Amino acid sequence: MIVVMDHRASDGEIEEVLIRLKKIGFQIHLSRGVERTIIGAIGDRSILCDINLESMPGVEKVVPILQPYKLASRAFQEENTIVKAGDLEIGGATIHVMAGPCAVESREQLMKAARLVRDAGGAILRGGAFKPRTSPYSFQGLEEEGLKLLAEAREETGLLIVTEVMDVRDVSMVAHYADILQIGARNMQNFFLLREVARIDKPVVLKRGPSGTIEEWLMAAEYIMSGGNYNVILCERGIRSFENYTRNTLDLTAVPVVKHLSHLPVIVDPSHAIGMWRFVPPMARAAIAAGADGLIVEMHPNPSEALCDGPQSLTPENFKMMMDDLKKIAGLMGRKMP
Amino acid sequence: MIVVMDHRASDGEIEEVLIRLKKIGFQIHLSRGVERTIIGAIGDRSILCDINLESMPGVEKVVPILQPYKLASRAFQEENTIVKAGDLEIGGATIHVMAGPCAVESREQLMKAARLVRDAGGAILRGGAFKPRTSPYSFQGLEEEGLKLLAEAREETGLLIVTEVMDVRDVSMVAHYADILQIGARNMQNFFLLREVARIDKPVVLKRGPSGTIEEWLMAAEYIMSGGNYNVILCERGIRSFENYTRNTLDLTAVPVVKHLSHLPVIVDPSHAIGMWRFVPPMARAAIAAGADGLIVEMHPNPSEALCDGPQSLTPENFKMMMDDLKKIAGLMGRKMP
Amino acid sequence: MIVVMDHRASDGEIEEVLIRLKKIGFQIHLSRGVERTIIGAIGDRSILCDINLESMPGVEKVVPILQPYKLASRAFQEENTIVKAGDLEIGGATIHVMAGPCAVESREQLMKAARLVRDAGGAILRGGAFKPRTSPYSFQGLEEEGLKLLAEAREETGLLIVTEVMDVRDVSMVAHYADILQIGARNMQNFFLLREVARIDKPVVLKRGPSGTIEEWLMAAEYIMSGGNYNVILCERGIRSFENYTRNTLDLTAVPVVKHLSHLPVIVDPSHAIGMWRFVPPMARAAIAAGADGLIVEMHPNPSEALCDGPQSLTPENFKMMMDDLKKIAGLMGRKMP
Amino acid sequence: MIVVMDHRASDGEIEEVLIRLKKIGFQIHLSRGVERTIIGAIGDRSILCDINLESMPGVEKVVPILQPYKLASRAFQEENTIVKAGDLEIGGATIHVMAGPCAVESREQLMKAARLVRDAGGAILRGGAFKPRTSPYSFQGLEEEGLKLLAEAREETGLLIVTEVMDVRDVSMVAHYADILQIGARNMQNFFLLREVARIDKPVVLKRGPSGTIEEWLMAAEYIMSGGNYNVILCERGIRSFENYTRNTLDLTAVPVVKHLSHLPVIVDPSHAIGMWRFVPPMARAAIAAGADGLIVEMHPNPSEALCDGPQSLTPENFKMMMDDLKKIAGLMGRKMP
Repeated sequence: MIVVMDHRASDGEIEEVLIRLKKIGFQIHLSRGVERTIIGAIGDRSILCDINLESMPGVEKVVPILQPYKLASRAFQEENTIVKAGDLEIGGATIHVMAGPCAVESREQLMKAARLVRDAGGAILRGGAFKPRTSPYSFQGLEEEGLKLLAEAREETGLLIVTEVMDVRDVSMVAHYADILQIGARNMQNFFLLREVARIDKPVVLKRGPSGTIEEWLMAAEYIMSGGNYNVILCERGIRSFENYTRNTLDLTAVPVVKHLSHLPVIVDPSHAIGMWRFVPPMARAAIAAGADGLIVEMHPNPSEALCDGPQSLTPENFKMMMDDLKKIAGLMGRKMP
Repeated sequence: MIVVMDHRASDGEIEEVLIRLKKIGFQIHLSRGVERTIIGAIGDRSILCDINLESMPGVEKVVPILQPYKLASRAFQEENTIVKAGDLEIGGATIHVMAGPCAVESREQLMKAARLVRDAGGAILRGGAFKPRTSPYSFQGLEEEGLKLLAEAREETGLLIVTEVMDVRDVSMVAHYADILQIGARNMQNFFLLREVARIDKPVVLKRGPSGTIEEWLMAAEYIMSGGNYNVILCERGIRSFENYTRNTLDLTAVPVVKHLSHLPVIVDPSHAIGMWRFVPPMARAAIAAGADGLIVEMHPNPSEALCDGPQSLTPENFKMMMDDLKKIAGLMGRKMP
Repeated sequence: MIVVMDHRASDGEIEEVLIRLKKIGFQIHLSRGVERTIIGAIGDRSILCDINLESMPGVEKVVPILQPYKLASRAFQEENTIVKAGDLEIGGATIHVMAGPCAVESREQLMKAARLVRDAGGAILRGGAFKPRTSPYSFQGLEEEGLKLLAEAREETGLLIVTEVMDVRDVSMVAHYADILQIGARNMQNFFLLREVARIDKPVVLKRGPSGTIEEWLMAAEYIMSGGNYNVILCERGIRSFENYTRNTLDLTAVPVVKHLSHLPVIVDPSHAIGMWRFVPPMARAAIAAGADGLIVEMHPNPSEALCDGPQSLTPENFKMMMDDLKKIAGLMGRKMP
Repeated sequence: MIVVMDHRASDGEIEEVLIRLKKIGFQIHLSRGVERTIIGAIGDRSILCDINLESMPGVEKVVPILQPYKLASRAFQEENTIVKAGDLEIGGATIHVMAGPCAVESREQLMKAARLVRDAGGAILRGGAFKPRTSPYSFQGLEEEGLKLLAEAREETGLLIVTEVMDVRDVSMVAHYADILQIGARNMQNFFLLREVARIDKPVVLKRGPSGTIEEWLMAAEYIMSGGNYNVILCERGIRSFENYTRNTLDLTAVPVVKHLSHLPVIVDPSHAIGMWRFVPPMARAAIAAGADGLIVEMHPNPSEALCDGPQSLTPENFKMMMDDLKKIAGLMGRKMP
């Protein structure tokens, strides 16, 4: 950490900062320049956030140097984390596609979707049981009934189940039915929810929030890991920018960046990022070419009848074509698909 | 709502859209142009979000015309809502300033802060009891002990208490101690939490999320109102932009915009928006000049000892000077301060 | 275009709007709803921007329906435009990579770079002769001397030359030496410069501005095309967002979106978008997988000696490896590389 | 400047960085920590941008500490710059409002506007002679004829004239007619144009670009100042964010921030930032309350007949009311208006 002193800071003010830093055990390097005095301080940044140097008189700014996360960092663990879910490995040689409808609507719809996912080579079924949406007047999901249907689909098809948990009170119920839990983009910094999923022994897909920086996203992963659950799968799903032709701006560069900074697996959700099915297959291909470990996409047996997010759902035919293309790209990347 | 058909849409595709719209009771106006066919549909937009027109073949896009919120809109209620909290009225002639430390740290710190707020003309004490922060390694708040200290400060000073609730399980406990509940920026779209505060009979300060549009913010207010709690106070606290000299970008224009679109009172939190105390007084003045109904600011008896957010906390002296300036601006705006 | 009237608009105000629209030859559809009156107007949007309906009393907002660009739109020309430069075709079956140093620094540096580009399968040499940079104290380029060196490199290697023109007064000089002119991101809406390059008969690479929407970018292309130069190659190079780990946020989804909206070829510049060489090869692969027609990347014989943008320049070795990967992805996409 | 070495950097790599820094005369401080080695370097940052440390092997990142601008900085000049234009002083005790139509349309329109501006207490007339707009099909301005009309309006009313220059070839012509030149938002980083206005002896209003950070904006001012023209007036006019209810997001906090970082005067353009006249008066009041030295606003004798930007133009009546309010706020701020 670097403390930059104001060009008018007095010697006494500089001394006060040095005393405070030394008191908490930091190693200090003082550089008195013509224009500015700069203090380098090396120690545990996790202590620093509470010592509040920026409020001290004469301090102009504090520039953090090291990453604020540890367990999630590549420096902490050099080799890639492989998350195990059932018999599957996420983050290993095999690229897995999670697919299914936005919302679980009925047994018929879900079973149909599940068979289509399995037949096209998907290994994990997605489907939402809780759908609180921007409008209080929209369809809000089947809740526990939806979870039961997901479990039933697993029985029938052998697919694993990933579904979102939104309420701290539902974590154990959702974990009872699902193989993988998902933390939605709006909850990336819902720290109470992060703490709850940290206590269960199921993998967690952690979506990046629409205004979350890569650093904040890794800090959210750190919350879950520091609570005891190391099975975190990061999921890029678009950030908010001024461009509004697409729903959000898919930040695909985050894939190689996160792989550089962290050892955790990264998947991509092009459906929610973009909001239009037409652009999902090219961006799914791009995600694999950029090095993603998997995808989560929306596919509906009949998108124009979907109760939510129909415009971004692939038809079964388009899904199948996309899967065929992805297999080829995966091969080029030295990876395989089931 | 306007449905724009693709320039290659067939007559059959257009007919299908008309049938679906009529089935749900919409009034239809068809415009066949040389380049494009456009369908105007008038009816209840809250139904529309579930009928999924954008997935129908031949539809290029759907352009909503009316606002998706109702109870929160100025069209629904022409006159300003005045929210009553204890003996105070928020949104009326008097401008109220909510002030206090970021976090409740100790009895001594809080009582000192409360007396300073009262003496400078503030009417409401703020202070956080739950502080889950970006880093899992930072101070996380005194929890119920903090709420008790807030209630004690109310007893001693006569100030009302506003504090944040973050966990659905804590809503009734927080409502037991506080006069006004706050929904933090990260929870603007935590719909489960919105539903819980909708069930209590205390006013709610609803902060705008860092990536929340004005429309989404008003939709979040609609969630609370449609659940039965009409006492919503909107709070602008900065949005995320590329400018990173300040923590967020205070969108002060949102004040007159929200006053135009909605009847709800609007206050401003310059401290969290900006992150540096130095710029809080000028932006507090600007907020009142722009028409805000109040402010919420951080003030700490000794900012350089604060356990959180010290850099953005005003000293007691700066707070007092700011309050004096605000009284003059309020007078110019035809309003008063206590 | 849809004109939404205020819910308090009088009959007289509605009538005034109808009169004005009819006067300029628009076809009108009036929808009087319970909540709002809506006027659909079909006609030439290029006239509309000057009739200023939004200022008329009683008008709440004007919602454009059709795209404001014509010549650049897919509706205007269904088949892809193939831009010819020398013997090369951009936008056809072959994917071309433009590569070279950020700035032309010396004959030796440029010749070395040119041979490396040619040997790795690149067809076009890039290099900047004019480098006005954010700081007035940085290296500003070799100017005409740099253009002459580029022409010399073409003689020696057979590569085509692409280089940026920044000043209206330099257009004919740059066009004299270069095969393809580049409009830089900061000049996307420098309309005087767009008009000048519209008058020459060389292809133009038009970079997207860091705050340019896709629609504005296509409007900038329309400026060049409406001035007589149809040989426009669009280049996505990142937009400004709150994420600052990378220099900009590469909006790769813009590639399939632009291909949907327009017939013009699209290439991608991952080097400037990201600012770190390490992430250039994965994002170059992703660009081709997303459907891009080409790439423009920075490669320097010795990046750590570069006078500008060294951190984003590939070494010759990394460039060669990237080219080998791209050839494979191009093959999968049914395309080829030279 | 701080150079953070990668945690795997070798001693040789660290040594190479030290050698390069010493060679250019930097003072070095080396801190070898357990996790990371950090090098503090103090010297002239304007040299640094060309030595390209980030490309050296073993370097993780380079963190600049000092501001890259000098002449524009408060550290360079403690007291406020007061820019003289005719008899007026901008940045001094008096707040000046520049007002007038977006575009000069005709003698009658301009003279009428000029008289209205003068009668309401404005001191400077604005009006555009060159209007290249997003669409090539819109009205593009009267060009030199417009400049002549502006000069004529000055003769008649005694107002000073501010107008935009967009083309390097027009700088001397515009400077011949105008009292103050304006660099538009899209040209904030048009470095050739900045260089040209640096050579004239008229004050320059430098608008912030929609994607320009405060630092880049001050660097653009530095361009003009380092070229010899110290009479720069900064103008905040909104930045691009995801919020699209308003045209841009007025970053009013930039006013006190720039006053803290720089000695240059700052004015605000609420009309272009917001795009809707209704919100201009409250934000003009807010700008003065935040400490702005002046305003530039659009006022049209008859906005609904305006050839451009009518929706954001005030009527003469609204302009007069706004001016009356501003005088009161200016008084509170210890300033005056003419």
